[in-house]
Amino acid sequence: MPMTRAPTAFETLIGGLDPAVLPASPPGTDPRYCRDWSGDYAGAPATVLRPGTAAEAAGIVRRCAELGLSVVPHGGHTGLVGGATPSMAGDEVVVSLERMTRVRALDPQNFSMVVEAGCILEQVQEAAREADLYFPLALGAQGSCQIGGNASTNAGGLNVLRYGMMRDLVLGLEGVLPDGRIWDGLKVLRKNNVGYDLKQLFVGAEGTLGLVTAVALKLFPRPTQVETALVAVDSVAAAMALYATARRGLSDLLSAFELIPQRGIALALDVMPGLRAPFATDAPAYVLMEASACGAVDLKGLFEGFLGEMLETGRIADGALAASSAQAADFWRMREGMIEAQARHGRHLRTDISVPISAIPDFIAETDRRLGALTPGSELLAYGHVGDGNIHYNVLPPRDLDEAETVALIRQCEEEIFAVTDSFSGSISAEHGIGLSKRAAFLDRISPLHRDMLERIKTAFDPAGTMNPGRILPKSG
Amino acid sequence: MPMTRAPTAFETLIGGLDPAVLPASPPGTDPRYCRDWSGDYAGAPATVLRPGTAAEAAGIVRRCAELGLSVVPHGGHTGLVGGATPSMAGDEVVVSLERMTRVRALDPQNFSMVVEAGCILEQVQEAAREADLYFPLALGAQGSCQIGGNASTNAGGLNVLRYGMMRDLVLGLEGVLPDGRIWDGLKVLRKNNVGYDLKQLFVGAEGTLGLVTAVALKLFPRPTQVETALVAVDSVAAAMALYATARRGLSDLLSAFELIPQRGIALALDVMPGLRAPFATDAPAYVLMEASACGAVDLKGLFEGFLGEMLETGRIADGALAASSAQAADFWRMREGMIEAQARHGRHLRTDISVPISAIPDFIAETDRRLGALTPGSELLAYGHVGDGNIHYNVLPPRDLDEAETVALIRQCEEEIFAVTDSFSGSISAEHGIGLSKRAAFLDRISPLHRDMLERIKTAFDPAGTMNPGRILPKSG
Repeated sequence: MPMTRAPTAFETLIGGLDPAVLPASPPGTDPRYCRDWSGDYAGAPATVLRPGTAAEAAGIVRRCAELGLSVVPHGGHTGLVGGATPSMAGDEVVVSLERMTRVRALDPQNFSMVVEAGCILEQVQEAAREADLYFPLALGAQGSCQIGGNASTNAGGLNVLRYGMMRDLVLGLEGVLPDGRIWDGLKVLRKNNVGYDLKQLFVGAEGTLGLVTAVALKLFPRPTQVETALVAVDSVAAAMALYATARRGLSDLLSAFELIPQRGIALALDVMPGLRAPFATDAPAYVLMEASACGAVDLKGLFEGFLGEMLETGRIADGALAASSAQAADFWRMREGMIEAQARHGRHLRTDISVPISAIPDFIAETDRRLGALTPGSELLAYGHVGDGNIHYNVLPPRDLDEAETVALIRQCEEEIFAVTDSFSGSISAEHGIGLSKRAAFLDRISPLHRDMLERIKTAFDPAGTMNPGRILPKSG
Repeated sequence: MPMTRAPTAFETLIGGLDPAVLPASPPGTDPRYCRDWSGDYAGAPATVLRPGTAAEAAGIVRRCAELGLSVVPHGGHTGLVGGATPSMAGDEVVVSLERMTRVRALDPQNFSMVVEAGCILEQVQEAAREADLYFPLALGAQGSCQIGGNASTNAGGLNVLRYGMMRDLVLGLEGVLPDGRIWDGLKVLRKNNVGYDLKQLFVGAEGTLGLVTAVALKLFPRPTQVETALVAVDSVAAAMALYATARRGLSDLLSAFELIPQRGIALALDVMPGLRAPFATDAPAYVLMEASACGAVDLKGLFEGFLGEMLETGRIADGALAASSAQAADFWRMREGMIEAQARHGRHLRTDISVPISAIPDFIAETDRRLGALTPGSELLAYGHVGDGNIHYNVLPPRDLDEAETVALIRQCEEEIFAVTDSFSGSISAEHGIGLSKRAAFLDRISPLHRDMLERIKTAFDPAGTMNPGRILPKSG
């Protein structure tokens, strides 16, 4: 008679599922499920399950709840804070939305679409474009990040100053609660003022209150004109004065306003073949500006007139409006090259802070001063979506440090940058979120009342604490 | 020896407060605290307290919590759903924010301001304008509604299609929880992605989760050009096709798009002295359109060109761009006159529903059909912010009905309108909220799960159920 044993919780979980839900290869061997883009966290999923429908996702979550198993919702694994990397202990079930990729509805006259969580952001943009519409969320990871992850992390990106963050673009949402019940909040209404706005709880919760399975999105007219300019300015203060002037001068048609320091241009020229210095003379700072419009607005004339006036009145040192889409792409390659050069440098500090827009010049000056004293050998690089008050203040440590010294220096610099951020009433996470990596720094900064409110929400929706445990808040119990 | 008795809870509550907090006249005699604008609810406050600071407000709320007294937060008493009318039982303490009227900060380069809850909306608009900035929330009650109430009720109004509802305009918030603790969420950041967005819980909660004492607001460049047009169209469907075309043709500079039926114009002409029919020939429907811009955009030329093309291609029957601000004001008086005429009619049904924008023509046709059969003698009037999918479908009952018959007819018509709204996946409250008057209809329409989620939030923040009890959800216990 053969020996029999009781099935393990994971065997019970998997038993009876559609084989398509199970991963093709052993989950522990697929780096997609073990790391996010930060590379700072490695994990070992207990298993990876890939539901094809909301009902299937709900069944999995319900069974996990019954078995006391923790669930880690998983999108395009492009996060930077360890929010979707399973623990090393191998005790967390990764639920990947990758098979839920349908565009459920697109209503051109309502300027809306309903898409499943696993849709890649670029595919969402493309589906809107095919209907002569525009979905404005745009970010570096758009070729692989998923729209459900964008909602769960309240993604930001390049167009926030005109169109808002993901929170502002979500009309409705379908989610699975930690106990496996499906909440259908997939309305496509612009106005629906009926008590607490439950979808807001899912947006930005980083999967700790439930699993997002579909979202209803707000669409816009497709811009038929896009104008891109690169301008040189004498200082960060001049860049920010330009911002306030440009919002008026361009009638709020401005869609991107990116600060790039001189050193960023130099880094980009190092790594981007064929890219040339934008102007004959270097300047302390540059701004990449983009405006877009549709209809019969003379956007090119408006932008040319604006830049001409800025030059004449000395508010910019130099400036060029892209004469072709190739030149516009080259302007954007300055920004991409700056990021690529940092990646090639190896281990470095990335931050993602925000301060009031008016405080940006002083914030950068003060951080430069403090870090210059702390680590004279490091490269300091402050750039970002400054029209939103969002700065990536990054530090490239000297190459001659060993790994332990590098890690220690990065930690010191981060603490210093966060301290300056605090002094300007800023945020240590403008868009990347909290996840695991910023949890301690975040909890150190909030009041006991604020923490109590977060915990009350978590407990109200996930009393057992099984939904993406340890992210944002420490594990309960 | 004189007889002594223990002080009542209200005496205990009032004891030791700054006399300025107490009302000048007996609270039960001042209609401000006993009725809202709907006129449908009358109440008797136990007392009215008027804190001058957040700390004072917190002290009052804490003392009420200790004494087990219910608190009704009170703004400009312009609500339409009984959300801030105290109960007739005289057991609720009205806390009015009317003395908290400071503009705490205005930062032009950050496009933000921080104002106390009791500021009148019009004063907020004016403070922004003085700084060459623009706060876009605009609604009929703006001369008396308060910004804290606008936040608590997630107010909408005329400019939602371009600028969003109040939820989209709040950067930060300061509130008092039901236990009297002050939550300071008054950040003025565009991006602050740090876990659950707690301010979202206060916005639209109608005072059931706490008292809003101050808000940080998003500002915009002040429009220096405003163009207003009135156009005649052959049908509601033509109006809605015009909307989609106008968003493109006017490059999303459209800030208002109001549907007015022919009957609405007729009503306006009846009550507005000196107002004349806009066009030589009547049309089934009209649209009041407004676009605004700043900088060197040729808005007038753009709008003229757009209307010319719409006329040539037969997509509108007639149209006029206001030649002066006086003519623009006359166009708006068409809308105001339509509302005034309804008020003069006496008791009638006001609704505030929304459906997907694409469903508006079918929604109105179906509702007309059903109500036409139900009450052939009533006047049916469907108008509103149709660019947001928001329709005020109102019914003026025949004047020869007695009060009981009128009330019964209004109830029947409302049920019918709500049923049609349901069939288009709409909302029974686009902007007015739930309060007391829509509570039953709202709770009838949500799933047990949705209700469970609402109750979990209420219980998490107000376990004793003393904060604006009975609004949105029934009283607990």
